Amino acid sequence: MKKSLGAKTIAYPTPAWAIAAYDSEGKANAMVAAWAGICCSKPPCVAVSLREERYTYAAIVERQAFTVNIASTAQVKELDYLGIRSGARVDKFAATGLTAVKSELVDAPVIEEFPLVLECRVLKTVRIGIHTQFIGEIMDVKADEAVLDGGKVSVDALAPFAYAPETHEYRALGAVVARAFSVGKQIES
Amino acid sequence: MKKSLGAKTIAYPTPAWAIAAYDSEGKANAMVAAWAGICCSKPPCVAVSLREERYTYAAIVERQAFTVNIASTAQVKELDYLGIRSGARVDKFAATGLTAVKSELVDAPVIEEFPLVLECRVLKTVRIGIHTQFIGEIMDVKADEAVLDGGKVSVDALAPFAYAPETHEYRALGAVVARAFSVGKQIES
Repeated sequence: MKKSLGAKTIAYPTPAWAIAAYDSEGKANAMVAAWAGICCSKPPCVAVSLREERYTYAAIVERQAFTVNIASTAQVKELDYLGIRSGARVDKFAATGLTAVKSELVDAPVIEEFPLVLECRVLKTVRIGIHTQFIGEIMDVKADEAVLDGGKVSVDALAPFAYAPETHEYRALGAVVARAFSVGKQIES
Repeated sequence: MKKSLGAKTIAYPTPAWAIAAYDSEGKANAMVAAWAGICCSKPPCVAVSLREERYTYAAIVERQAFTVNIASTAQVKELDYLGIRSGARVDKFAATGLTAVKSELVDAPVIEEFPLVLECRVLKTVRIGIHTQFIGEIMDVKADEAVLDGGKVSVDALAPFAYAPETHEYRALGAVVARAFSVGKQIES
């Protein structure tokens, strides 16, 4: 028997991705989005939802581009800072010591220190409610050599983390539980 | 210096959620979506992307409802099975021994054995590319008493897992890394 918790945004895992963009004056800014996810394989797309009052919102509308920067667990302090202050008041790159490097593919900055980045141009803008969803076509994914193993991202080397909504925690992406598209075959044997 | 990996859907974490719906004849079916995420706080919404050829796609279009069922690590085998077989050929509930119970709020089945469920009605349908995104308004979230602690979901009791795209693994949501909206304040001190 399940208990009702109400109409809420409770789900696991949700990401904690740094969304970076240039404002109208060319200042790099980044915020954290948890209401986000991959949304299409071809073209490869990622969806990120922002409230209109967020500083990054106008920047994405104007530049029609953003990057999704994925931090390692060792960078959780910097990531969290990007989510608690507004680019309207502070230069978050200066405050954190993070470096904004212009993407060669889209009109948005890449956070150099975070090991994985998705460079996106806005394909579609979807108004939902207090959040608006930007669907970004992934033009390229770039990764630090240090997190690659045989040309693929090593999850253990990347050491990413997730956001847990109700308890407001970041949780490590931990041990391998099973192989996907494989363990389920045991059902039939 | 970052290395280009190409225009791919590489991101961490991504979910592995069981999306359940009734087909035109009222048969319950469920599939696994990794291209998904919360997308709005008010109204509370979750987005799930499906390819048109998936059996569940027509079911959601017809019923305009679905549920997002979140499994515990102990149920990874059942979850994975839902992702590797098609409801067009097998009765996945019969094969796995999972139980479909009609939601009281939306025209879709709930997977009784999975501890957390979001009951959704389709608010918007967004065509992207080979995937179409269904934005579901979350009408209620229900959880097993066993995963609640003081009325809130205990992440440790729920023991959810994530999907890692490139390596095709399920990874446990592990240890607490830091408190969100908190650890970043150290930057300013």
